Amino acid sequence: MVTKAEILAVGTELLMGQIANTNAQYISARLPDVGIGVYYHSVVGDNRERLRDVLRLAISRSDLLITTGGLGPTKDDLTKETIAELFDRRLITHQESLDRLKAFFNSLKRPMTENNLKQANMPDGAIVLRNNNGTAPGCIMEEKGKIVIMLPGPPSEMKVMFEEGVIPFLSERSDSRIVSRFLRIFGIGESSMEDAIKDLIENQSNPTIAPYAKEGELALRITARYPKDGGSKDLIAPIEEEIKKRLGVKVYSSNNKGLDEVVSEMLLETNTSIAIAESCTGGLISARLTETPGISRVFNRGIISYSNQAKIEDLHVKKRTLERFGAVSRETAIEMAKGVRNISETDLGLSVTGIAGPDGGSPEKPVGLVYIALDCRESTECKELNLWGSRNRIRNVTALYAFDMIRRRLLERKD
Amino acid sequence: MVTKAEILAVGTELLMGQIANTNAQYISARLPDVGIGVYYHSVVGDNRERLRDVLRLAISRSDLLITTGGLGPTKDDLTKETIAELFDRRLITHQESLDRLKAFFNSLKRPMTENNLKQANMPDGAIVLRNNNGTAPGCIMEEKGKIVIMLPGPPSEMKVMFEEGVIPFLSERSDSRIVSRFLRIFGIGESSMEDAIKDLIENQSNPTIAPYAKEGELALRITARYPKDGGSKDLIAPIEEEIKKRLGVKVYSSNNKGLDEVVSEMLLETNTSIAIAESCTGGLISARLTETPGISRVFNRGIISYSNQAKIEDLHVKKRTLERFGAVSRETAIEMAKGVRNISETDLGLSVTGIAGPDGGSPEKPVGLVYIALDCRESTECKELNLWGSRNRIRNVTALYAFDMIRRRLLERKD
Repeated sequence: MVTKAEILAVGTELLMGQIANTNAQYISARLPDVGIGVYYHSVVGDNRERLRDVLRLAISRSDLLITTGGLGPTKDDLTKETIAELFDRRLITHQESLDRLKAFFNSLKRPMTENNLKQANMPDGAIVLRNNNGTAPGCIMEEKGKIVIMLPGPPSEMKVMFEEGVIPFLSERSDSRIVSRFLRIFGIGESSMEDAIKDLIENQSNPTIAPYAKEGELALRITARYPKDGGSKDLIAPIEEEIKKRLGVKVYSSNNKGLDEVVSEMLLETNTSIAIAESCTGGLISARLTETPGISRVFNRGIISYSNQAKIEDLHVKKRTLERFGAVSRETAIEMAKGVRNISETDLGLSVTGIAGPDGGSPEKPVGLVYIALDCRESTECKELNLWGSRNRIRNVTALYAFDMIRRRLLERKD
Repeated sequence: MVTKAEILAVGTELLMGQIANTNAQYISARLPDVGIGVYYHSVVGDNRERLRDVLRLAISRSDLLITTGGLGPTKDDLTKETIAELFDRRLITHQESLDRLKAFFNSLKRPMTENNLKQANMPDGAIVLRNNNGTAPGCIMEEKGKIVIMLPGPPSEMKVMFEEGVIPFLSERSDSRIVSRFLRIFGIGESSMEDAIKDLIENQSNPTIAPYAKEGELALRITARYPKDGGSKDLIAPIEEEIKKRLGVKVYSSNNKGLDEVVSEMLLETNTSIAIAESCTGGLISARLTETPGISRVFNRGIISYSNQAKIEDLHVKKRTLERFGAVSRETAIEMAKGVRNISETDLGLSVTGIAGPDGGSPEKPVGLVYIALDCRESTECKELNLWGSRNRIRNVTALYAFDMIRRRLLERKD
């Protein structure tokens, strides 16, 4: 039975402070779902002796060791070699991995160099984990009751391999599981939220409730421990219901989906077409919405009207409106939203105009002043925001408000 | 002389994956400035036995140990107590810290509880580090050639204490400093790059050269060690020049700036106006470019023409072109680029059309097929990409190629 896990990141870039060890964070947050607790994180550089010492220690004090990094094609990539040596296993060519590597380089029409071959070498007897997002496969080794799992360093590769290969493997070996549900919340401050559900947080031990603040929004994690073989009673649902009852429409997701994704899916489900006119967000809102596959069915077009010329030509904003009220005004926002909807003949037209800074502010129109307008056949609404923070924060939080405005409109239309 | 450092974070919240160990990243990035290399990071929970074992190991293998966390008022906060025990020192009340604590609680008109007193207890003989942003002071202990520095966990408190108390202390004890420069590279594979500069990597010890792969691009870190008292000779520049000579225009930045930022700045510097028509990237390219403040001077507009209707109406793509060659084709890309440039009367017009997937591919036009066109007065070019990976990867890598195309065009125009 695996109970004690350790996560070892191999890579000098971590010791140089180039990146934070987000892989360890990701894995640590997930292992409880298969009933495993994490007891140590370690980071070591691309150095054979130090790596060997750290590996030896990890294997002695933990049942499960998960390594990230050091599986690449270069001489600095030592993880597999050092672990195989420690367990007295040979590295042998894994034919399927080799074929995949060759096919990969073929498809890119790039030459495959000698050192790429080493990525297909795997410790004898290991379970190989396919890498669907990169070239380096991972693997799982078991010996003397210890499990060692090697994963690639790039988070995009690591995460997919972890979810597809590691979680199912560990789940089979576990006797309990810890289930978490994330409620995501927009439109309320952190302390107001805590006030609203304080008694729930304090009176619970299974499940537990933990609040998190993210940029411009909030989240609650509800975590329950179940025996693996069943325990049919849903411990999370009653708490979730109670929280939703108290926070209402502010809870926008119970499965940790972002506001952008929630809105994309609602647009698709309700078959509501949309067109977007962005000024200060410069395409950010459109870019986020179009991350969702299939969105082209409802996303008609986006217009990033940075210049006044573009606002007039592309969105039919009146020159007089711009002169009288300025590009950052309620009036301009509304004309932009109407304009983009009329041109596109969509159900919804959304517009954003504002001052993201750091320059361009004035006493009357300071940095952080943003107008969002949403137009549909029945009505037009416009929201004024006064945001603080960096250019990036202002852009990101503006996007959240825009998504929330669309979401609430779609909820109303449903009723 | 301190050379080998280790950073130990104490706190269960890290092992739960609630937060990433950004303290270790921050400290790691700063220590080279005082000539100290970081060899290990470790994380351990709020547990006395495991903490003691990890401390013992750290002190045996490193000259300098910096701990973060575990200095607070609760029973879970064990760092100081465990280290003092290990070094056989008593904890004694530090009067100045006690006075500051009392004054702090007074100023908040909050009662000071018994357990808060323990924050003013310090190991006998330690140098106390004042906390200007919180209640827990830190400290520095020296014994038998080893230095142990204890810092609080909250990053805002840790950073200030580190900069004000730790850096000056270490700087005095150091005889060298380490300087790094990052070259960022686009348009070459990892192993081809290594082939091209293998001899440089292998024959260097000061500076050293380390390659890194990021999504769709590469980086090289050149690191040199200088004597603290001067050493006026620039050790990095000659290697940097040699690498640039070999990789040429593929090196796009020597100061770790991203391709998007480099391009934004080039557009501003050369006063080159641009308009962008995006299909599969859905606004991503415009959103990235407009992260740079002041970009509105050269960024005229962006058009996200998801639908064929938008391509025809907004970009003046011929209906016949769409029918004959399809929306994802060289011909459409070129008409989009010309269209957006003509409408906007800009120096450059960039367009992207492609299949980001996961659906929408066909044998003739598979997922990952992307066309990028760049139009200016003198010429029009179009690039076909065949990318792999997730929808997000395809969109991100497409954006990199688009930025690189703009960058190269601007470089040529300069000549």
